Amino acid sequence: ISSKLPKHETSIFSVMSKMAFEHDAVNLSQGYPNFETDRQLKELVYNAMLDGYNQYAPLAGITPLREQIADKIESLHGKKYDKNTEITVTNGATQALFLAITAFVNHGDEVIVLKPAYDSYEPAIKLNGGIPVLVQLEGKGYKLNVEEIKQKISPKTRMLIINTPHNPSGNVFSKEEMQQLEALLEGTDIILLSDEVYEHIIFDEAKHYSASAFPNLSKRAIVCASFGKTFHNTGWKMGYCVAPEELMAEIWKVMEVNVFCVHHPTQRAFAEYLKTPQHYLGLRDFYQEKRDKFLHLIKDTAFKAVPSKGTYFQLLDYSEITNEHDVDFSRRLIKEFGVASIPVSVFNKGKEDHRQLRFCFAKTDDTLEKAAEILKKVK
Amino acid sequence: ISSKLPKHETSIFSVMSKMAFEHDAVNLSQGYPNFETDRQLKELVYNAMLDGYNQYAPLAGITPLREQIADKIESLHGKKYDKNTEITVTNGATQALFLAITAFVNHGDEVIVLKPAYDSYEPAIKLNGGIPVLVQLEGKGYKLNVEEIKQKISPKTRMLIINTPHNPSGNVFSKEEMQQLEALLEGTDIILLSDEVYEHIIFDEAKHYSASAFPNLSKRAIVCASFGKTFHNTGWKMGYCVAPEELMAEIWKVMEVNVFCVHHPTQRAFAEYLKTPQHYLGLRDFYQEKRDKFLHLIKDTAFKAVPSKGTYFQLLDYSEITNEHDVDFSRRLIKEFGVASIPVSVFNKGKEDHRQLRFCFAKTDDTLEKAAEILKKVK
Ligand SMILES: CSCCC(=O)C(=O)O
Ligand SMILES: CSCCC(=O)C(=O)O
Repeated sequence: ISSKLPKHETSIFSVMSKMAFEHDAVNLSQGYPNFETDRQLKELVYNAMLDGYNQYAPLAGITPLREQIADKIESLHGKKYDKNTEITVTNGATQALFLAITAFVNHGDEVIVLKPAYDSYEPAIKLNGGIPVLVQLEGKGYKLNVEEIKQKISPKTRMLIINTPHNPSGNVFSKEEMQQLEALLEGTDIILLSDEVYEHIIFDEAKHYSASAFPNLSKRAIVCASFGKTFHNTGWKMGYCVAPEELMAEIWKVMEVNVFCVHHPTQRAFAEYLKTPQHYLGLRDFYQEKRDKFLHLIKDTAFKAVPSKGTYFQLLDYSEITNEHDVDFSRRLIKEFGVASIPVSVFNKGKEDHRQLRFCFAKTDDTLEKAAEILKKVK
Repeated sequence: ISSKLPKHETSIFSVMSKMAFEHDAVNLSQGYPNFETDRQLKELVYNAMLDGYNQYAPLAGITPLREQIADKIESLHGKKYDKNTEITVTNGATQALFLAITAFVNHGDEVIVLKPAYDSYEPAIKLNGGIPVLVQLEGKGYKLNVEEIKQKISPKTRMLIINTPHNPSGNVFSKEEMQQLEALLEGTDIILLSDEVYEHIIFDEAKHYSASAFPNLSKRAIVCASFGKTFHNTGWKMGYCVAPEELMAEIWKVMEVNVFCVHHPTQRAFAEYLKTPQHYLGLRDFYQEKRDKFLHLIKDTAFKAVPSKGTYFQLLDYSEITNEHDVDFSRRLIKEFGVASIPVSVFNKGKEDHRQLRFCFAKTDDTLEKAAEILKKVK
């Protein structure tokens, strides 16, 4: 059997979570909370089932949910998407990203991916016969290098994928960086795919600038978002994407044959829950506290926190501890010490590692304390 | 914007359901029940949420559910699939079909599709750069024509898609037909994709022969099934596929980047519910009664029922009523009379119509009676 992805390995997130389980380690690897989603949401799903919302939903999602999404984006970013033609509810942001790539990337097309990058982009591009063109985010701050992107643009460039707030680094593109992207893409027909799943997890004085907020980006952008990341239910697999009508029309063709639609009762629940903006606006304070707690806890360890502005991940630099490659060190950290993390180099295949590990702090205080106690022993 | 599916139109199922709604017609078009799924299932989903199954499930689905699926198939078809390597829980059978096609169909590969066929196969093949090669099922009985398939096999043939019980005709391949397929494919490396979503809806003396039941088919087969069709909850979007380990390994690569996993609490619910085989074995009697009722109700109309062995669809021949094309007649039936159906020719693009409409009888007795009252007036 020939393979379309011959070199593809099992997701690092599955691998590390499994290893964590086997070694009974404190698991700060895969990005999901180990605390509960709001009970009200569970009741809303249950009531939707009792109320009979158990058959196919419309392909693009139920209207009340698309309405709420439109209102949310308008209030946050000042851009009004048409609920009837420009919004699609998806099986998680992962599916939204896949739809966008599948709808637009043709055999031989190039797609610029900013590295380090979440691990689903490249295989999705390759499955569609596209060619990932990699550009490094710069230095320890993981800054945008517009000049290098410019040099990599060719007549075959079909799409540019950005991710802000950025997994794994926690960087958030500034207004100026977004404007630089706007200027860069102006006059081209390059589609911007903007992965914004951590949009509501932002720290200190930072602000999240969505591609939706910039007219010359939003006219070419598919913006992807996640309810799982925002409402602590990654296993409910719901997210959405927004895009101009002409782009969305192509996404719908793929949506129809890929899954047709997504879990109907869960859509009803989110449509109701989103009516209270505090449910997502409150996330900022919630995670700021977690982040600050985690930073405080690891202060006395030999790990050094890399400054970050968002996401529920924290990079820790371990260069004062060992010269090991991050893949080796992360495995040893599970086996010998009992804490699971993600080696940053897996987001950055082919490039030397940064001597950094990614820790997910979307965990109970108790879990974070246990992890910190262990990390103190690593010298 | 160039399109990968330039001629693709909105799904006929969405179109007809929308028209039915606009004209307040009795809707026997799209294939879903208008009665409720078991309350016990809703409670199982709710309890799974309360019990904390709200984060990512494993990519292939939770083990207890894969165990139940393995047991079900073994008891029905005598084939034991390995729960760890040969089963994947999917976002409905639609996603299972898409995964199979995407994992194996390369640019330029040919895929044999038996027409009339469900409308998602061909666009999925085209999205992957494949070429659908169409073979007609024969005559009013929609029988397998192995000789014609044989003639259409070329060195480029990568896959053959079958669907039994068959939507829209209700035909079910006999043991002899499955054996003919087995002989036909022996010695080739053609993958068999078997869509068996109506496996439990079988009438009279008919028996469903799964591709799983034939060793020389199952070794090359991806078999797709649907909980939505079986448990009256098409909006919960859950199904599965089974395949030999080497094939499943490729499907997982696509699953990972397409959706990663599916609704976790719903998986828990089905794992529990499947422990009672009567929950799916009982479907046969349930739908036999519906089917017989529908046949009885339309006895005095000018429509003639086409003999069928399975699925919750009934083809009605209207050649005694009008010479209109089925697309035109189905629209007139909604607008002038108030009953929605699906014109069979949409399953059979490019071929002349059979003067048949497809009616879904997965509806309450009341709905079926209303529909029949109207059909009596159509002469
Ligand atoms: C779908 S598993 C990956 C979860 C995640 O977003 C991450 O850990 O980066
Ligand atoms: C996904 S909508 C189509 C439902 C169906 O299976 C049918 O009507 O044939």
